[in-house]
Amino acid sequence: MADSIATDETNRLIASNKVDGTAVYNPEGERLGSVYNFMVNKRTGHVEYAVLQFGGILGFGSDYYPLPWNTLNYDSGQGGYVVDLTREMLESGPHYQATEEPLHDLNYGRQVYSHYGVSYPY
Amino acid sequence: MADSIATDETNRLIASNKVDGTAVYNPEGERLGSVYNFMVNKRTGHVEYAVLQFGGILGFGSDYYPLPWNTLNYDSGQGGYVVDLTREMLESGPHYQATEEPLHDLNYGRQVYSHYGVSYPY
Repeated sequence: MADSIATDETNRLIASNKVDGTAVYNPEGERLGSVYNFMVNKRTGHVEYAVLQFGGILGFGSDYYPLPWNTLNYDSGQGGYVVDLTREMLESGPHYQATEEPLHDLNYGRQVYSHYGVSYPY
Repeated sequence: MADSIATDETNRLIASNKVDGTAVYNPEGERLGSVYNFMVNKRTGHVEYAVLQFGGILGFGSDYYPLPWNTLNYDSGQGGYVVDLTREMLESGPHYQATEEPLHDLNYGRQVYSHYGVSYPY
């Protein structure tokens, strides 16, 4: 299994510019949207959440859904991230439009993590 | 100082697409280059290093210099990152060309951190 070890090492890190724009699927292979960007804690360098762009037509009228980083799993077969979330779960979660970006404060972070049942470490 | 607290909160997180392309200066205000991208540990969501694009002309012949995330400090006055590093320190550090991207494995990470005197937490 030397090869798979080597592959794991190579794939240990992912470049920021390869995350942005990557497709996001649910476990059934249905495309939910794409990663718009992700938010990094300036001090600690920790990625707090990835922002899924979802809905709208050709990017117009899309909404932006922050998701805890560890809800996204990269699937090299699909060439995108898989999240184990239903549309309903997403639609009822925190989201915003391009023109109304929230204050990304601790309260907002807590809301995001809480909605997806992930404990908030900040 | 309620205002500065609010500002700190707002600026707690930075968007990935605002980091890429941002200018990098030394403490004397000399422009060293710009952030090309940054590398995130897929599992932990931790930013391991930011990659400084430096040298060359209009992007041609540039080299890429990974820097530990915590060597970069954002200066809103300059609208860019400030690193307390000399050109000599950078030039003698790990770097690569676009065509020869290294295996971003633990050994490489250790080399990067070690060159800049930062303990490697991985």
